[in-house]
Amino acid sequence: MLGSTHGTLTTTSRPARVVACGERPGLTVHGDAATTADLDAGGRPLTSAVPDLDRFFRPRTLAVIGACDTEGRPGTGITRQLIGWAARVGARVHPVTPSRDSVFGLPCLPSVHDLPPGIDVAALLIADPLPVIEELGARKARFAVIFASGFAETGPQGAQAQERLAAAARRTGVRLLGPNTNLNAFETFREDLDGPAIALITQSGHQGRPLFALQELGIRLSHWAPTGNEADLECADFLSYFATRPEVGAIAAYLEGLKDGRAFLLAADRAARHRVPVVAVKVGRTQAGSRTAATHTGKLTGADAVVDAAMRQFGVIRVTGLDELQDTATLLARARPPLATGVAAYSISGGSGAHFADLATAAGLQLPTLCPEKQRELHQWIPEHLGVANPVDNGGHPVGDWRGRRIIDALLADPAVGVLVCPISGPFPPLSDKLAQDLVDAAEQTDKPVCVVWGSPVGTEDAYRRTLLGSSRVITFRSVGNCVTALRAYFRHHRFVADYRSPFENAPRTPSPAAGKARALLRPGEQLSEHSAKQLLRAYGIRVPREQLVTSAAAAVRAAGQVGYPVVMKASAPQLAHKTELGLVRIGLTSASQVRDTYRDLTEIARAQGIPLDGVLVCQLIERGVEMTVGLSQDSLFGPTVTVGLGGVFVEVLRDTTVCVPPFGERQVRDALGELRGKALLDGARGAPPADVDALVETVLRIQRMALDLDDALAELDVNPLVLLERGQGAVALDALAYCR
Amino acid sequence: MLGSTHGTLTTTSRPARVVACGERPGLTVHGDAATTADLDAGGRPLTSAVPDLDRFFRPRTLAVIGACDTEGRPGTGITRQLIGWAARVGARVHPVTPSRDSVFGLPCLPSVHDLPPGIDVAALLIADPLPVIEELGARKARFAVIFASGFAETGPQGAQAQERLAAAARRTGVRLLGPNTNLNAFETFREDLDGPAIALITQSGHQGRPLFALQELGIRLSHWAPTGNEADLECADFLSYFATRPEVGAIAAYLEGLKDGRAFLLAADRAARHRVPVVAVKVGRTQAGSRTAATHTGKLTGADAVVDAAMRQFGVIRVTGLDELQDTATLLARARPPLATGVAAYSISGGSGAHFADLATAAGLQLPTLCPEKQRELHQWIPEHLGVANPVDNGGHPVGDWRGRRIIDALLADPAVGVLVCPISGPFPPLSDKLAQDLVDAAEQTDKPVCVVWGSPVGTEDAYRRTLLGSSRVITFRSVGNCVTALRAYFRHHRFVADYRSPFENAPRTPSPAAGKARALLRPGEQLSEHSAKQLLRAYGIRVPREQLVTSAAAAVRAAGQVGYPVVMKASAPQLAHKTELGLVRIGLTSASQVRDTYRDLTEIARAQGIPLDGVLVCQLIERGVEMTVGLSQDSLFGPTVTVGLGGVFVEVLRDTTVCVPPFGERQVRDALGELRGKALLDGARGAPPADVDALVETVLRIQRMALDLDDALAELDVNPLVLLERGQGAVALDALAYCR
Repeated sequence: MLGSTHGTLTTTSRPARVVACGERPGLTVHGDAATTADLDAGGRPLTSAVPDLDRFFRPRTLAVIGACDTEGRPGTGITRQLIGWAARVGARVHPVTPSRDSVFGLPCLPSVHDLPPGIDVAALLIADPLPVIEELGARKARFAVIFASGFAETGPQGAQAQERLAAAARRTGVRLLGPNTNLNAFETFREDLDGPAIALITQSGHQGRPLFALQELGIRLSHWAPTGNEADLECADFLSYFATRPEVGAIAAYLEGLKDGRAFLLAADRAARHRVPVVAVKVGRTQAGSRTAATHTGKLTGADAVVDAAMRQFGVIRVTGLDELQDTATLLARARPPLATGVAAYSISGGSGAHFADLATAAGLQLPTLCPEKQRELHQWIPEHLGVANPVDNGGHPVGDWRGRRIIDALLADPAVGVLVCPISGPFPPLSDKLAQDLVDAAEQTDKPVCVVWGSPVGTEDAYRRTLLGSSRVITFRSVGNCVTALRAYFRHHRFVADYRSPFENAPRTPSPAAGKARALLRPGEQLSEHSAKQLLRAYGIRVPREQLVTSAAAAVRAAGQVGYPVVMKASAPQLAHKTELGLVRIGLTSASQVRDTYRDLTEIARAQGIPLDGVLVCQLIERGVEMTVGLSQDSLFGPTVTVGLGGVFVEVLRDTTVCVPPFGERQVRDALGELRGKALLDGARGAPPADVDALVETVLRIQRMALDLDDALAELDVNPLVLLERGQGAVALDALAYCR
Repeated sequence: MLGSTHGTLTTTSRPARVVACGERPGLTVHGDAATTADLDAGGRPLTSAVPDLDRFFRPRTLAVIGACDTEGRPGTGITRQLIGWAARVGARVHPVTPSRDSVFGLPCLPSVHDLPPGIDVAALLIADPLPVIEELGARKARFAVIFASGFAETGPQGAQAQERLAAAARRTGVRLLGPNTNLNAFETFREDLDGPAIALITQSGHQGRPLFALQELGIRLSHWAPTGNEADLECADFLSYFATRPEVGAIAAYLEGLKDGRAFLLAADRAARHRVPVVAVKVGRTQAGSRTAATHTGKLTGADAVVDAAMRQFGVIRVTGLDELQDTATLLARARPPLATGVAAYSISGGSGAHFADLATAAGLQLPTLCPEKQRELHQWIPEHLGVANPVDNGGHPVGDWRGRRIIDALLADPAVGVLVCPISGPFPPLSDKLAQDLVDAAEQTDKPVCVVWGSPVGTEDAYRRTLLGSSRVITFRSVGNCVTALRAYFRHHRFVADYRSPFENAPRTPSPAAGKARALLRPGEQLSEHSAKQLLRAYGIRVPREQLVTSAAAAVRAAGQVGYPVVMKASAPQLAHKTELGLVRIGLTSASQVRDTYRDLTEIARAQGIPLDGVLVCQLIERGVEMTVGLSQDSLFGPTVTVGLGGVFVEVLRDTTVCVPPFGERQVRDALGELRGKALLDGARGAPPADVDALVETVLRIQRMALDLDDALAELDVNPLVLLERGQGAVALDALAYCR
């Protein structure tokens, strides 16, 4: 099949590349990051500087600019809260207000100039923060928090004002949080909770509330970064910082948009290398969500399929609801790496076990049949007529006595069992109170996660509130669905990090030898002819059919002889798409006379349609294989991305495509291909031999190399079809379209 | 494309058809049901008898057979609970135990023979209930509840014992609940709650607990039918009964299997006709779930795709988790039919609104942009810089004063708004307490559903516990996901019932004229030749290509002349499948000499492979169209079902098929086609003209007619491909396979 499809996700704006920055007081470089001079061949950073946020989260000094204690004034509540918070964390407060001597009994400074030098954090309770940033810079302040709104979230004018803030930050070295942020960075965390903590990043304070409230359920939180509009400090900075904090077991993020795609990837890469799970809700699955998010924090949400792919590649676990965010982050923070991939379900009701097994298996979790010895062991305590193969149904009674704990321990001792899940659909205190206590006790003695699904919608029962939530080892869910979602993420995360290799490590820092040749082929602002587009592919070692561009019938016949019969002939011109539909392609010509006639036909048809040809292509006919489409397009957040799909109905009807976001390696391409619904075709469905997937992977990698060299000078490339021959035989690009910027 | 696919879901066991039953005391026929003699042409009932369960749920007399009051004995707790329950509902208790004079102070009868005649309910606390059923029959008892387990859930022997119980029920007229049921039928319901109630059916008592506990959240429940193994009374009986109870607003069911598919369909049809929503969890999405369910209540779960289709056709809302079951049933019970299809989202945070809008829109809900007048109205109370287009973000403050209620009322007054949803991600009592109260107050004054998503995981806040749960009008969710799931179900249910026409109404009661001819073509135990299978299709008015079966080259040439060139030739034999792969099909023969040569080739190839042909088919070549596959197969629960899919890669790689469960009409077929992932192909994707979907629908209906006439004598039929020509041009079955029983 010939012809071209424009089903790829394309945007034309340019995502930000590296911005030179000088020395900043808050910007010291952590162990595994290097200087910002480390760029790839496309000019994008390969390492990121991690701001030292210790002084942000645990300041020794806190200036409150615009402090106020007049009841009824908007700043008063904030001032009170900041002073209270400072007292708890041991920070000295400096209120700054020209009009008064003291605020809440603390002596007031008339201006920022009067602050002692090197203030850790300045909270700005003022409508126009810009001049104050300059003053804070002069006093060598480290961080400023800007609560004011009315910036990028309001439109272009606000965006300009925000850019002035960002410029001031760069100029002065004062790192900014906000604008349009809130007091969430100044919350007090419970210190009586143990176990690994969740660190929280939100772009909407209200959406972080349920996560912060997890502390009331006994789940430890360590930080909350409400990033607001991200004029300066952004989600990626906090992600990078949290990734190496020893108390952080998991990072949970609520994101409406990303400021800089590359920075996010580098931060996620850092978290992956440190094996710290990142769980995120990212708004923007639909236009409605994107639009609303844009008016909320003024950020682009990005093309959702690209965001999805970027998160998959760098191991960020994307969930949809805040409830899933809470439950998944809690499991990932608390649970140690799995010792086995099997899940054992244990319940006091066959119904609960059947239902859990059904949903868990449908989600791809493994519930291994327990071995006969284990089943015999369990039947010592569980009546013979009850199923103990997994799910294990104890029928209720054994829970009430000494047998209850024995059963749990026996299950946890099974080497095939990596996780124990106990769904308790309804409380029956004589049994469930004891069961909950046994689970809590057993969880203390094992490295395997012990999960409970407390199904009662009431949630005030003692077994739940006191016993289960009182444990920092048991992970308690309120629905089977969320438990299954979290367990999938748990197994995936640990598989992912176990053999993670950063794609930034081997990213090329210099253009490839092909770059010069390729650049010479580009025609700014134009669409290349098929022949030129194929030469571009060839420059990067991507196979195209043997072909010649000819301008006479006689030359066509000579070319056919050299290419080898049967041949394909196509009219060639820049700006020419949809050749098949225009009648400008002929397939399977077997003789000189057919070639001669066809040459005349094609030029005649083109003339009749007013298409000025630069010649006719005489191409080798390629035997059938699996048709793919591989495209390169520009994403507003991540720059060039590569979209891969199965051809024909898969791309045209089902939009069955997957995206690779540079930088990526072979593994990421294979993972992406695994997302295709029609992937069975690659393995040789319908009696066909397996296709050369290796050649496909290689092609995608070569197109990434091209993207790196040419960046957005090549606005879009569509290889369609790329025919995968039988395994070992390679792949051939039969047609290509290229648009230059 | 020729050839055949066996991708349909097939089972070979015979589902139960109608069983003659005599007069039963408990079986009176309700208004819209008729006698069991009303059968369709296939011998399956068209109406169902609805048992009068008033006396079961509100008995005047309760016999406790095997009553006991010795502490530590298993029956003692049950006896105590039954006596307490009877006191509350005003039933007179008759303990029956040979060995003692009284139980818990009530005089004991020595045997069932001593019971007064016409006992409403007898609870059997004995290991071997069979002889007692006979005795209860003699005393004209109405209902017996069997707690004993050890029946079908334990294997074939138990299933036989259960069948003896069922036979005793039929013989004696005593209707049975159980065996393997529990005390859930004797729970006490809160009577202080108002609004339409949820009636509950469960096949596992424990799995019903969370639903029963909804009463603690202020949600009214009216009944609980724990059907256990369903030796006699089954889920369908309770569904039918609940469908006309005035207090029931929605029926919630937890199902592990169905005893009789047809009975379930008739009950669901009854509920649909009475516009009563039925929400169900049905275990059996996976083998693991099915297997476990079978060992729990001894029922088949059925082929999941068929169950799914049956539920869709009859409007049963299938959900996956018990949490979704609770939330969806609650919304459907409480909410009146929608006055508009739009959802308005209203929040005190742009983040909550953006997130809700994203998930709601992704799920297909409509969030209409509010009209400019409404937006101006809202901006009287909401600052100008906040978005009020929908979602409506009030920024917080207006909630705290008189404006809060005005905003809510203005949204509810908008004719484009059918439902108001207020996501409150985190409580902030100064605002959220007032917001909750305003929502509760507003909900009292409107017929539109007012939904709240209370996002805090804590759930002990006053605004939640007292204010929101104290209202019988507001519907409060704990996650956006469940709210969206429930709202989808709400709109779908009301769309569904608004133009529901029972497919039982016009189901044919006598065989069609084609039946005789069709039966004559069947060959018991054999696979028919392609030619015979096509004659079967033809008998039902399904178009096949012009074709002739010939046994000589000369006859082939004559046939080709009559059929019209170009022709297709295929070897023909019974038991012959995969002709294309065997080299036994040739397409596009254009001359007598080609036909002659091909005849020789095909017979030669068949001889070489040892295939005894009954001839060679010379067929009309059909121009290309959209290839479909339509199959008929036998489901263990529902009997003959029709599977429809797009051909080629759609069925072979993607398994993109959908099922229609008889009886169905045109609407159900069109709904089913709407489930196909590749459905865009039917509308004319890829530049093709729209396909003749009407002809496809007609073909599926004709195959249903065939199934009705032939029932399981035709074990399986595969029409592949059925080529859909351009709209108005019809559909042609190019190949067919038929297997007789």
